[in-house]
Amino acid sequence: MKFHHIGVVVNNIVNDGKIIENVLRSRKTSIPFHDKIQKVKVTFLDVGNFYIELIEPTETETPVTSFLEKNGPGVHHLGFEVEDIENEITKLSKKGGLVVCKPVLGFENRLISFIFLDSLPFKLIELFSIPQQNNSV
Amino acid sequence: MKFHHIGVVVNNIVNDGKIIENVLRSRKTSIPFHDKIQKVKVTFLDVGNFYIELIEPTETETPVTSFLEKNGPGVHHLGFEVEDIENEITKLSKKGGLVVCKPVLGFENRLISFIFLDSLPFKLIELFSIPQQNNSV
Repeated sequence: MKFHHIGVVVNNIVNDGKIIENVLRSRKTSIPFHDKIQKVKVTFLDVGNFYIELIEPTETETPVTSFLEKNGPGVHHLGFEVEDIENEITKLSKKGGLVVCKPVLGFENRLISFIFLDSLPFKLIELFSIPQQNNSV
Repeated sequence: MKFHHIGVVVNNIVNDGKIIENVLRSRKTSIPFHDKIQKVKVTFLDVGNFYIELIEPTETETPVTSFLEKNGPGVHHLGFEVEDIENEITKLSKKGGLVVCKPVLGFENRLISFIFLDSLPFKLIELFSIPQQNNSV
């Protein structure tokens, strides 16, 4: 279970990305990826030894839109790369985790899943596999 | 400017630390450190390639108490280790950063400073030096 990124919800991934690049001297790593399942556009900024994922909702009624309306832009989840996603989901479920999104293909052709853990001070964890070889998104 | 930790405000660093250790399989790295200047107790959890700093206010009227009352437990700041803290503060100030805490000695005998950047989706950045050799806290 390796920490990979902080997921940050913003209004506009291009504009907010430019500001973060300027302030933190981060580097863009990908063109915006449109995740049609999650209904978001995402991009990743390389901050040296971790990534900041910027997330912008593409529709008016999504969990991310609700987050933005309630909290404004801010940290949404912590993302961890795992070797065996099903096994990690099972482990977190036994510790009280609620699977809010079962594994689906997402960024970089990875299987991604979101787990809500009410016991944690940061409640939303994203787990994702290494990039899959046999399918493309 | 090297990412070091996510600062998370909690109600109780011992109890919340145990929960995070259990869920994320992190390791405690220090006994709680009482920062009398910031009026908080902090501890660090090693999550493999970064740290989670847990922060618990020790007095009823502190910025961290206000954060807790307003938001509940959650991500409070991102912490970066820097080689030249004064130089980095100057750079961030030129980019709109507001110094909310000038460098003072903090955890691990480091000079720490907090900068508020309203343009960022995560607004509070902690900068800190490498541990200082000539003073002890």
